[in-house]
Amino acid sequence: MASLQNLYSSRSLQPGYGSNYNVDYVIHYQIPQTDRHEAEAAYVRLIEALVNVGLTTEVRPGDADSLLIFVKIASDKVLSDQIYRSRLGDWLHGARTVGPDQELSATLKSEPVTEAERLRLVYLLMTKPRNEGGAGITPGTGAWKHVAGLFPLHNHDFNRKLIQKMSTKYTIDDDDLDGIRNTFGENVAFYFAFTQSYFTFLVFPAAAGFSAWLLLGQFSWFYALASCLWSVVFFEFWKKKEIDLAVQWGVRGVSKIQTPRPQFEFEHEAEDPVTGEPVKVYSPFKRLQTQLLQIPFAVACILVLGTLIVTCNSLEIFINEVYNGPFKQYLAFLPTVILVVMTPTFSTVLLKFAEHLTQMENYETIDAHHAALVQKQFVLNFLTSYMALFFTAFIYIPFGNLLLPYLDFWRAAAQKIAPSDKFSTQEFVINPARISNQMFYFTVTAQVVNFLTETVLPYVKRKVLDEAKEVQAKISSSSAGPKVPDVPEEADFLARVRSEVLLPTYNVTDDYREMVIQFGYLSLFSVAWPLTACCFLINNWVELRSDAVKIAISSRRPIPWRADSIGPWLDAIGFLSWLGTLTSAGIVSLCSGKNPDGPAGARSDINAVAVLLSVFLAEHFYLVVQMAVRFVMTKLESAGLQKERKERYLMKKRLLEENLHQAVDEKAANPGIAKSDKITREALEDEARRASVRGSGGSDEMFWQRQRGIDDTVQIGRSLISKVGSS
Amino acid sequence: MASLQNLYSSRSLQPGYGSNYNVDYVIHYQIPQTDRHEAEAAYVRLIEALVNVGLTTEVRPGDADSLLIFVKIASDKVLSDQIYRSRLGDWLHGARTVGPDQELSATLKSEPVTEAERLRLVYLLMTKPRNEGGAGITPGTGAWKHVAGLFPLHNHDFNRKLIQKMSTKYTIDDDDLDGIRNTFGENVAFYFAFTQSYFTFLVFPAAAGFSAWLLLGQFSWFYALASCLWSVVFFEFWKKKEIDLAVQWGVRGVSKIQTPRPQFEFEHEAEDPVTGEPVKVYSPFKRLQTQLLQIPFAVACILVLGTLIVTCNSLEIFINEVYNGPFKQYLAFLPTVILVVMTPTFSTVLLKFAEHLTQMENYETIDAHHAALVQKQFVLNFLTSYMALFFTAFIYIPFGNLLLPYLDFWRAAAQKIAPSDKFSTQEFVINPARISNQMFYFTVTAQVVNFLTETVLPYVKRKVLDEAKEVQAKISSSSAGPKVPDVPEEADFLARVRSEVLLPTYNVTDDYREMVIQFGYLSLFSVAWPLTACCFLINNWVELRSDAVKIAISSRRPIPWRADSIGPWLDAIGFLSWLGTLTSAGIVSLCSGKNPDGPAGARSDINAVAVLLSVFLAEHFYLVVQMAVRFVMTKLESAGLQKERKERYLMKKRLLEENLHQAVDEKAANPGIAKSDKITREALEDEARRASVRGSGGSDEMFWQRQRGIDDTVQIGRSLISKVGSS
Repeated sequence: MASLQNLYSSRSLQPGYGSNYNVDYVIHYQIPQTDRHEAEAAYVRLIEALVNVGLTTEVRPGDADSLLIFVKIASDKVLSDQIYRSRLGDWLHGARTVGPDQELSATLKSEPVTEAERLRLVYLLMTKPRNEGGAGITPGTGAWKHVAGLFPLHNHDFNRKLIQKMSTKYTIDDDDLDGIRNTFGENVAFYFAFTQSYFTFLVFPAAAGFSAWLLLGQFSWFYALASCLWSVVFFEFWKKKEIDLAVQWGVRGVSKIQTPRPQFEFEHEAEDPVTGEPVKVYSPFKRLQTQLLQIPFAVACILVLGTLIVTCNSLEIFINEVYNGPFKQYLAFLPTVILVVMTPTFSTVLLKFAEHLTQMENYETIDAHHAALVQKQFVLNFLTSYMALFFTAFIYIPFGNLLLPYLDFWRAAAQKIAPSDKFSTQEFVINPARISNQMFYFTVTAQVVNFLTETVLPYVKRKVLDEAKEVQAKISSSSAGPKVPDVPEEADFLARVRSEVLLPTYNVTDDYREMVIQFGYLSLFSVAWPLTACCFLINNWVELRSDAVKIAISSRRPIPWRADSIGPWLDAIGFLSWLGTLTSAGIVSLCSGKNPDGPAGARSDINAVAVLLSVFLAEHFYLVVQMAVRFVMTKLESAGLQKERKERYLMKKRLLEENLHQAVDEKAANPGIAKSDKITREALEDEARRASVRGSGGSDEMFWQRQRGIDDTVQIGRSLISKVGSS
Repeated sequence: MASLQNLYSSRSLQPGYGSNYNVDYVIHYQIPQTDRHEAEAAYVRLIEALVNVGLTTEVRPGDADSLLIFVKIASDKVLSDQIYRSRLGDWLHGARTVGPDQELSATLKSEPVTEAERLRLVYLLMTKPRNEGGAGITPGTGAWKHVAGLFPLHNHDFNRKLIQKMSTKYTIDDDDLDGIRNTFGENVAFYFAFTQSYFTFLVFPAAAGFSAWLLLGQFSWFYALASCLWSVVFFEFWKKKEIDLAVQWGVRGVSKIQTPRPQFEFEHEAEDPVTGEPVKVYSPFKRLQTQLLQIPFAVACILVLGTLIVTCNSLEIFINEVYNGPFKQYLAFLPTVILVVMTPTFSTVLLKFAEHLTQMENYETIDAHHAALVQKQFVLNFLTSYMALFFTAFIYIPFGNLLLPYLDFWRAAAQKIAPSDKFSTQEFVINPARISNQMFYFTVTAQVVNFLTETVLPYVKRKVLDEAKEVQAKISSSSAGPKVPDVPEEADFLARVRSEVLLPTYNVTDDYREMVIQFGYLSLFSVAWPLTACCFLINNWVELRSDAVKIAISSRRPIPWRADSIGPWLDAIGFLSWLGTLTSAGIVSLCSGKNPDGPAGARSDINAVAVLLSVFLAEHFYLVVQMAVRFVMTKLESAGLQKERKERYLMKKRLLEENLHQAVDEKAANPGIAKSDKITREALEDEARRASVRGSGGSDEMFWQRQRGIDDTVQIGRSLISKVGSS
C-alpha cells in the first residue's frame, strides 16, 4: 500500500491508481486449503448469481490463496432500471416529494446518478434476497462463506484532490461535502458535515474560555453560562442544519425506509395495516422484557467500572497526597497503569455483553439494532470517560472525608507490605485543582495518545503486514512454482487492488463516538479548565484531516449508505448538553471563590443550599434558553424545508394542471356578476317549477317564493326601512 | 326566548322551532333613526353583493328598527362549486391527503357535506374579500356598519336530541361528538371532546385523592406523585387523541391554512418563496420590539395584582388571626369583599391593555392574533387565580414572620381608627391549614358561584330583557301605528328568529379558559386538599351539560369554524402540569409531617435543603415520566395517523397505476435468469463492437474483454482455484 507521500504529494497519481477500469465492486474470494471441489462449486454459483441479476464479472488471482472477482453492472439499461425502481420506492415511502418521471432519460437528466448512488444500487443488487430481485449474497455466511469481502474501489483521483484541498484550507465547504457525499455516500458526508459544524462552533467557547482563563481563572460563572448558551445554540443549529442537508442531498426521510435485519426471528406473520403487505411480527412486550435487562446491565457496569475507578483514584490520592515514603515518584504511576490496563479489559467484556443483549432484543431492522447497540455503547463510554471526573467533582471535593476509610485501608496495606517506620505519611488535604489536572490529562494527553493509536499505529501495522505478506508471498511462490503472471498493462492496477483488499473496513460509528465523547468533556467539565475548547479546536482541525486520510488511504472504500441525520448521536449530544448545565453549575458553586491551594478546612463550609439552588437555577436557565432558541429557529425558515415545501406545492400544482385540466377550466370561471345573476334567476325559476310539481316540503319553498328575485327583496326592504325612518 | 322546560322537555318542539325553512344565515340589519337614504342605499348594495356571489335572499321585518335578511345558497351547483374549491384548496395546502375527485358527484358521495361545512362555506362566501370571490361583508365596519350581526339559525331538532341524550348519560360518546362537529363545527366539538376526556381522566385523581384524604390526610407524597403521573399521562394522551380526532374529522393541518387578519398593516409586498404569490410583509424585528413590551406589562400585572393580594391577605390574616376586637365576624368579610370588587376591576383594565398590546403587535393572521391574546389573558388569569394560593404556600407558610410589618401596619391603622384599649390582639400564629381552606373556597364556593353567573344569570337577564323588549315593542307599535303583520304560517318562525337575534354570541375561548384554570388548581395545589378532583368531577358533569345548554339555547348558533387542536391551551396545560410538579413537591415538603394545629415555632425548622431537593427530584421525576410516557405513546400507533398514512399510500399507488401504467408494466418484468443472461451477452457483444470502433478508453474495455462471458470467467476461476488446491 502506498504511503501518503508516495501517493498524493507527487504531481500525478502512481501507476495503477489513476483508473478503476469501471470496476464497481471487488469480491475477495478466499480459497480454502481443503475441500477444493466445494469451493469451485460455490465459485460457479457465485458467478452465476451475479450474472443472473445483470452484472458482468472478470476474475483475477488475488494473493496466494484467494481470487479477486471484479464486478460491474452489465449495461446502462440495467442501471437505469435499478435507478428507476429505487427512486420510485423512495417516493412511495415518502422519502421523495416528486416521483420519478415516466421518461427515464428526463429523470436522469434532472437528477444525474452519482458514484455513490450507483455503488449503493449495485451493492443492493448483489446482497438483496433473491425474492426481492437481488443475488442474495451474504458475505461470510452460509453458502457464501468463502466470500471474505465485498467492497468498491477507491476513486484515488477524487481522494487525492480532496486531501490536497482540505490540507490547504481552514474549513471544509459545501462543495467538499457534496464531493464526499457523491463519493462516499450521505452516511460519511454527515459525519464530516457534523464535525465541520462542531469545529466552526468551537471558536465561540474557545474564545470565551480563553478570556475567562486570562481574566477570571477557572470555575467562573461567566464561562459556565457561556458554555451552556453555546451548547444549546449549537444543538439547535445542528438539528436545523441536518434537515437542510438531508433535503439538499435528497435523502430526507430515507431513515423511514428500513432494511430488514436478516437475523430477526418472528413469531407470526400479519398484514401491514397501511400497505396491506404481510409483515413479520415479534411481540413488543417480549422485547420490552429483554430490554429491562438493560437495567441490571447498567448497574453492573456502574459497579464494575465504579469500583475500579474509586479504587484507583483513592490509591492515587493516597500515594500523591498522603504517602510520603520511598519510591513515591514511581508508585505515582501505579494507579494510572492499573486504569489504563483494566478499563479496556473490563469494557471489552461489557461491550461483548452489550452486543449479546442487543441481539437478544431481536430488532426487526438494522437501524433499530444499530441504535440500540449505540445506546449501550454510549452508556459504557460515558462511564469509562467521565466517571473519574464525576468522582473528583462530586465525591472527592465535597465529601473528601468519606475517602478516609479507603486511605486508611491503603495505609494499612502499605504498612503490611513495608514496615511502618520505613515511610512517613502526611495529613490528607482536599485539593480542588485535582479536577483541573484531570481535565488537562483528558483534553491534551489523551487526545494525543488517541491520534497516535488511530492514525500512526494502523500505518505502522500496515507497513509491517505488507512486509510480512511480501516475505510470505516470496516463500510460497518459491515453494509452489511460478504463479499465473499478471498481464503487464494490468499489473499495477492488480497490485493496488491486492493492497486495498488488506485494508480494514471503515466504521463511521467510531468517529462519531469520539466526537460526541469530546463534546461531553467540553460540556460537562470544561469549567474546571476553560482552555478545553482551545485544545479541541486544534485537535479537531487535525482530526478532520486525519479522518479523511483514514478513509481515503487506510481503509477500504466504504459502502456508500444513505442517511438523513447523525442518528442516535443526536440524542446523546442533547443529553450531554443538558447534563453539562447541571455539572457546570455544580462544579462552579462547589469550587469557585475557594483558594484552590487553601487549607482543607475550607471545603467543609460548602453551602448545600447554594449548590442545590445554583444547579436548580442553571437547569431552568437551560430550559428557558432552549425554548427561546427553538422559537427563533422556527422563525428562520430553513432553506431546505422551504425547498421541500416548494417542490411539493409545484408537484401538486402540476398534477392538478395535468389531470384536472378540464374540471378546473370549467370551474375556474369565477362566478361573476352577470353569470351568478343568471344562476340565481335560473335557480329560482328551477325551484319554482319544482315547488309546483311536488307537494311536500312546500312550506320551505313557499318561504323563499315570497320575494321573486332580487328586485322584490330590494323593494320590500326599502319600504320597510322607510317605514322605520318615518315613524 | 323559550326556556329549557318549554322547549325541550315536551315531546315535540314548539311551533316555529321545527324547521329553519332552509335558511343558511340571518343578517340582522339595524336601521338607523336618521339618514334613512344612506341606509336604503347600503341595504341595496348588501342584497346585490349577496346575490352576486350566488346567494338567494328574503327580507322580513325584525324588531322595531331592524330588518332580518334571510340568506341561503342559490342552488346545489353553487354549493358544490364552493365545496370543490374549498377541498381543492385544502389539498393544495397539505390539509388533505387525497385531492377531490374530478367527478363532483363522486366527491360528494364519498364525503357528504355536513351542515357545518355548508354553513362555513356560506359564511366565507359572504365575508371573503371580493378579489377572492366573496361578497366582502365585514359586519359593523365601513360600508357594512348597519350589519349588526350575521349568524346561522339553530337546528333545534338536533339540539333537543343532544341535550336529552347528554342528560341521561354519564359520558359523551363519539357519536355525540360527531353530531356536535357536524352541527357546530370542529372548533366547538374539540372543546367538548377535551372536556369529556378531562372529565373521564378526573376519575383517577379523584380516587387517589379520596383514598389519600381518608388514609393519609393532606400534604401526602403519595398523592403528589399520583397527581404528577396523572397530569403527564393525561397531557400526552390528549395530544394523541387530538391528532386522532383531527384525522377522523378530516381537519388535520387546517391550522396551517391561515385566514389573513383584515387589520394587519404591512410594510411592503414580497413574493412567497414557496407559492410565488405576492405576500404582505411586516418586519419581524419591529414586531419583536413590540412583543418585548410584554415584559413590563407582565411586571405591571404582577405588581398591581400582587399588591392587591398581599394587602388583602395580610389584612385578612390580621383580622382573623391577630385582631380580637369588636365586629370581628363582620370585619372578616372585608378583605374578601375588597378582593371580589377590585380583582375584576383591575383585570378588566389590564385586559383592555393586553388587547391593545396585541393589536400593536400587528399579526398577519387571525390565529396568530388570537394565540397572542390568549397567551396574555392566560398570564392575567394565572395571576388572579393562583396568586393568593402562591402567596399562602410560599410566603405565608415558610416566611410568615416577613408579614409582621404588614400586621403591625394594620394594627396601627386599627388603633388610629379606634382607640387601642377598645380591642385586644392575640399572638400571630402561622396556620398551615389556611391553604386548605383557600383551596376549599376555590374548588367549591367559587365553582358554584361561577355556575350561577354563567348559566343562571344570563337566563334571568334574558327573561328581563325579553319583558323589556315586549313592553318597548308595545309602546312603539302603539305610537307608530300598525306594523307590517307577519304571514300567519311564518309568524312562529319569525318570532323565534327575532328572539335568537337577541342572544349573545358564543365564545368557546371562555369555556376553554375555565377548564384550563380548573386544571391548574388541580395540578398546582390539590395536595393541600386532595378532595379537589372529586369536586371537579361533579362540577364538570354539570359543566358539560350546562355548556351544551348554553350553546343550544342561551347563545346564537356559532359560526362552525374548523380547528385541528385545542390551540394555545395545549401549551398552557403542559405548563401547568410541569409547574404543578414543582409546587406540589414544595407544598408537601413545607407542610407535611407538621401538625397543622401545632405552634408557630414549628415553622422555623423548615429544612431549606430538603425543600429544594424535593422540588429538584420531583421535577426530574416529571421529566423522566414524560419521556417514558412519550416513548410508550409513540409505540402505540394512533388509529388516526395510521388511517392517514394508509390514505397517502393508497393515493400514491393509485396515481402510479393510473399515470405510469405503461412504464411500470414494461419494467415490472423482473430480470429473470434467461433474460438477464441475454442482457449480459448482448451488452458484452455490444461493448466489444464499440471497443473495436473507437480507439480511446481502450484499456477499460480491454480489462472487461479478457473473459468473454460467464463461461470464460467460470473456467478461469476454477483453474485458479485448482492451482491453489494442488499446491
